[in-house]
Amino acid sequence: MSRKLIECVPNFSEGRRPEVIDAIVGCFRNKKGCYLFDDRADRDHNRLVVSLVGEPDPIQDALIEAAKVAVRHIDMEKHRGGHPRIGAVDVIPFTPIKTITMAECVDLAHAFGSRFHAETGIPVYYYEEAARNPERKKLEVIRKGQYEVLKIEINRPERRPDVGRPALHPSAGATVIGARPFLVAFNVNLNTSDLKVAKAIAHAARASGGGFSHVKGIGLPLAGRGMVQVSLNIVDYEKNPLYRVQEFVRMEARRWGVEIVDTEVYGMVPAEALLSSAEYYMQIAGFDTRQVIELRLLEMTGENGDS
Amino acid sequence: MSRKLIECVPNFSEGRRPEVIDAIVGCFRNKKGCYLFDDRADRDHNRLVVSLVGEPDPIQDALIEAAKVAVRHIDMEKHRGGHPRIGAVDVIPFTPIKTITMAECVDLAHAFGSRFHAETGIPVYYYEEAARNPERKKLEVIRKGQYEVLKIEINRPERRPDVGRPALHPSAGATVIGARPFLVAFNVNLNTSDLKVAKAIAHAARASGGGFSHVKGIGLPLAGRGMVQVSLNIVDYEKNPLYRVQEFVRMEARRWGVEIVDTEVYGMVPAEALLSSAEYYMQIAGFDTRQVIELRLLEMTGENGDS
Repeated sequence: MSRKLIECVPNFSEGRRPEVIDAIVGCFRNKKGCYLFDDRADRDHNRLVVSLVGEPDPIQDALIEAAKVAVRHIDMEKHRGGHPRIGAVDVIPFTPIKTITMAECVDLAHAFGSRFHAETGIPVYYYEEAARNPERKKLEVIRKGQYEVLKIEINRPERRPDVGRPALHPSAGATVIGARPFLVAFNVNLNTSDLKVAKAIAHAARASGGGFSHVKGIGLPLAGRGMVQVSLNIVDYEKNPLYRVQEFVRMEARRWGVEIVDTEVYGMVPAEALLSSAEYYMQIAGFDTRQVIELRLLEMTGENGDS
Repeated sequence: MSRKLIECVPNFSEGRRPEVIDAIVGCFRNKKGCYLFDDRADRDHNRLVVSLVGEPDPIQDALIEAAKVAVRHIDMEKHRGGHPRIGAVDVIPFTPIKTITMAECVDLAHAFGSRFHAETGIPVYYYEEAARNPERKKLEVIRKGQYEVLKIEINRPERRPDVGRPALHPSAGATVIGARPFLVAFNVNLNTSDLKVAKAIAHAARASGGGFSHVKGIGLPLAGRGMVQVSLNIVDYEKNPLYRVQEFVRMEARRWGVEIVDTEVYGMVPAEALLSSAEYYMQIAGFDTRQVIELRLLEMTGENGDS
């Protein structure tokens, strides 16, 4: 039996006061089963983005602890910053990584939302896959007008929170909690400076252009290199594996006699997203990811109760 | 700082008595930092092969414990089996996996050899990369004539052990300890039944035929499928990455109008051996294996002292 792994990227409305940032991030340090991958505070946004990977229970415990610190130190009445926000603990998304389904992450988001409200008094909205109605899938709909407008409109029927009375927490506002798939940021660079080529390929590749159902994409100039880039977000790398998207881009680029120069996988990526492409190109039959020493080891360290 | 990872595949001369096999294998169970990946006892060979992955110290401690069990229960004077052997604890190879060099594994083999002799009284021979002279690189040279002949010839200058007096342990014989690189078993299946094609390609690919320096290979019929197979051992997957070997096979096969049907990666494989091929085919620039969530997590579980 392998342990369940999720990613969680909570966003806090504090990017300027180091002592508050440290106090929040400290809640995620040296926690068994909750691993702090990254924390980035942005002064202009006045926002802190924390990246966690680990098991659902320890991550939830650490989130509650951090939320209480945020409530103690952040006053939304005084908060100013360049990034849209409605609360001190602005957004908490749960993402399935391994041995856990999206449906389980949705249940997790709902259970956590109730606990979060009970322990902090902050009203909760559910978004993305955890949304209780289709409009709330989109974060921008829930955050419309931000803290200042939501404060006035929260008792309108369409703006009532999913958990809690229709009133913002006096200092911490509201929090958006949800579940969403892992997103792989995959950029393909082309040996042309003609932006229309990148735009046309991005259009053909993305769902909104009739392409892959779980791909978003835009064409961008890559000024420094005199090239253009097809910048893609793979929202479901199991249904739209990277190799398939890449070969599609290659095929479309040939239309203009253009070739792929190189690609970029930006940020974190689950092993399976790359191994499935290795399997395709290397034509490996009957491959099992348990053959990969490190993945097997990770399972076993979990089994032995070491982490 | 990441933890050092090695593989170790000790071979014991017992493949028939379940209680002895269980007692030996039991020494490797539930040990923090020493993970039992596999154990296979063969009745005909009368031999037990154990696959371990983990950190050097706990693996060495478990090996000493298991060796003492083997010495207590195995009498080489009575041992019969189909596989060549010179001792109750026949062979112990150490293989670098991660954050450890071959030179460190050679030092490890030598330090462990001294300790092994001190704690069991068994004379030790060093082989492969840990050999004290070039002839002893080969296991078959050390094991020539097996237990029965070595017993007589051990005091000849060329057969003296590297550690201990020139006399076998009265019941446990001698032990061969060494360091060797990780070996990836990689088979490439071709859409022809012409064995000479597989043999010619294997010859061209392997070091002994003038091909890749760290590749061994033979051509085999794949009777059940009416095809042939180029069966390869990649002895150094960093210097001879899988994609390069595979594309070489593809190129040579074209000489006969033959294509690759599929490939097999047999047994365990380090993540890097597959990721480097994904990097090549996907043209990923600036990739860092620390971007892979599971590999990062494995490092962090080590850092937190969890395992």
